[in-house]
This record gives sequence, C-alpha cells and structure tokens, in this order.
Amino acid sequence: MRGYTMDKDDYVKRLRRIEGQVRGVQRMVDEDTYCIDVLTQISAINRALQSVAVGLLDQHVRHCVRDAALGDDPERADDMVNEATRAIERLVKA
Amino acid sequence: MRGYTMDKDDYVKRLRRIEGQVRGVQRMVDEDTYCIDVLTQISAINRALQSVAVGLLDQHVRHCVRDAALGDDPERADDMVNEATRAIERLVKA
Amino acid sequence: MRGYTMDKDDYVKRLRRIEGQVRGVQRMVDEDTYCIDVLTQISAINRALQSVAVGLLDQHVRHCVRDAALGDDPERADDMVNEATRAIERLVKA
Amino acid sequence: MRGYTMDKDDYVKRLRRIEGQVRGVQRMVDEDTYCIDVLTQISAINRALQSVAVGLLDQHVRHCVRDAALGDDPERADDMVNEATRAIERLVKA
Repeated sequence: MRGYTMDKDDYVKRLRRIEGQVRGVQRMVDEDTYCIDVLTQISAINRALQSVAVGLLDQHVRHCVRDAALGDDPERADDMVNEATRAIERLVKA
Repeated sequence: MRGYTMDKDDYVKRLRRIEGQVRGVQRMVDEDTYCIDVLTQISAINRALQSVAVGLLDQHVRHCVRDAALGDDPERADDMVNEATRAIERLVKA
Repeated sequence: MRGYTMDKDDYVKRLRRIEGQVRGVQRMVDEDTYCIDVLTQISAINRALQSVAVGLLDQHVRHCVRDAALGDDPERADDMVNEATRAIERLVKA
Repeated sequence: MRGYTMDKDDYVKRLRRIEGQVRGVQRMVDEDTYCIDVLTQISAINRALQSVAVGLLDQHVRHCVRDAALGDDPERADDMVNEATRAIERLVKA
C-alpha cells in the first residue's frame, strides 16, 4: 500500500481536524446552541469523513486491487474486489 | 428547547465516544492498518453521527416547530419548518 | 394535507420524469453502455427521488404535524413526529 | 465487460421492477396516500437503485480496472480508477 503510506500525513491531518470538529459539536450541544446550527456542523463532519473514506477506497483500488491483479493469485484479486464492494455498500448506506 | 436540554448529557456522551472513534481512526491510519478496516470504522462513525443528527432533528420538530405552531407568529413556524427541511436536505446528501 | 394536494401535479410530473429516467437506464444496460455512464444516471435518479422525498417530508411537518399540534390530541402530534423521524432515518440510510 | 453482459438480464429485470415501483409512487401521490407511506416506498426504491449501482461498480472494478491493470497502458488503468472514484463519490452523495 505505497499510495496509502504516501498520503498518510495528509489523512492524519484531516482526521485531526475532524476530531476538533466533533469536539466543537460537543461544545455546541453543551452550550445549548440552536440545534439547526449543530446539524449543519454534523453534516460538514459527515462530508469530511466521506471524503477521507472515498480517498482510502481510491487507493485500495489503485494499489491493492491492481497489485493483486498483476500478482499470480487470481483469487486474492477477487477477494480484494469483494472487500471493496462491501466497503462501498457500507459507505453508501452510512 | 426543553427536550434538547433534557437529553443533553446523552448527546455529549455519544459525541465524546465519536471523538474517541475518530482518534482511533487516526491511529489506524498512522499504523498502516488495512484500509478496508479503516473504512469499516469510518462507516460506523458516520452512522453514529447520523443517529445524533436524526435525534436532534426529532427534537427540533417535536419542540421548536410545535411551540412555534402553538405561538401567535405563523411566520416563525414556517421559518422553523424551512430550516428543518434544509437541514434534512444537507443530512441526506452528506 | 392541503399543501400536498396543491403540489400533487408537480410531484406526479417529477415522478413521471423519474420513471422515464429509469427506463433510460434499462436501455443503457441493454445496449452495453459503459457502466460509469450508467452509474452517473443512477445517481441523478437517486437525487431526484431524494428531492421528491424531502418535499413530501416538508409538507408532512408543515401541515400534518402542525395541524396535530394545534388539535386537541397531543398524542396524535407525537405520533406524527415519530413517523417523520423514522422516515428521515430511512431516507438518510437509503 | 464480460461480467456486465453476463448479468445484463438480471439488471434489466431489477430496473423494470424499479420502474414499476416508481409508477406505484405516482399512483400513491395521485390517490393522496398518506405521505409517510409514500416516503417508505421512495426509500425502498433508492435502496434498490443503490444496490444496482454497487453491483455495476463491482463489475467495473472486477473487470475493467483489472483488464486495464493487466494491459500495457498504465494510464488507462489510472483513468478507470479515477472514473470509479468519482462514481463512488456521486453515489455516496446522491
């Protein structure tokens, strides 16, 4: 998973920002912020998380699935596509 | 927003757990965890956040919209429904 | 449900367009259209359906929930909010 | 895209069922069915469409991306992953 490792710092940075946003929502709830404003913030967090997830999926297909396709174990490549598909399914329904 | 305040502790507790989950994902990425497992965890966080959001929306409609409907300012009630609808739209697309 | 009835023709028209889009996707699959193009079209249909759903939800809250809130049966208003919340939950996860 | 063609009949059949469901929703709206019941039906249609989309994506990755990876044009394989990623993005947000 070269690609994944390459962008690791970027992902960790984005996730740290998301962590801060979640903490912000805690504060909003604690301070009785108008709930519509809390909802706007939660939607922003969800979008940020989905964007991280789509990036990870991209790298899974770009590297893992491709490496497996070029390898000599066709079943392994099939397993990787199966996993990717189930991950997409969970994301779409999350 | 009585209802909202009533469940405040519950929401803060759930958001704190979500914050911990986001921190867990940072660690997973940092330790090069297989990306499909990271995705599974992100989907779980998204579901937990959506569930908080749906709860807040429920209370908005149950209390804010209803109080406004019973009040003497029909425009205010309309505004609250408009805000709720836009929030639902953002949630559905997040 | 006055509002609902008022916009009935608009909803039926939009749903007829969606029906045509679904038929279009059948044709695309039947003619072996590149699957990414099929997916783009399916996403467009999903967005159109979600938009109809958000419109119906808006009217449910605007009219049913409000009428119930103004009525003399507080439990009925509660039931309507419960139904709306469950519908939002299903939409968000659909 | 062998796989795609193989399951073609199955996809067309599922899309025909979805077309019928959309027509059913038109009828529901036309007959002033309680809007929560209409929403339940729309959520079912969205789920059915998403399931078709995930199936098509699976086949895109399983066949197109893999064939491209095994081919002698690495850029083509990259293009296919890019397209898949953008399609996933649209699905997740639809």
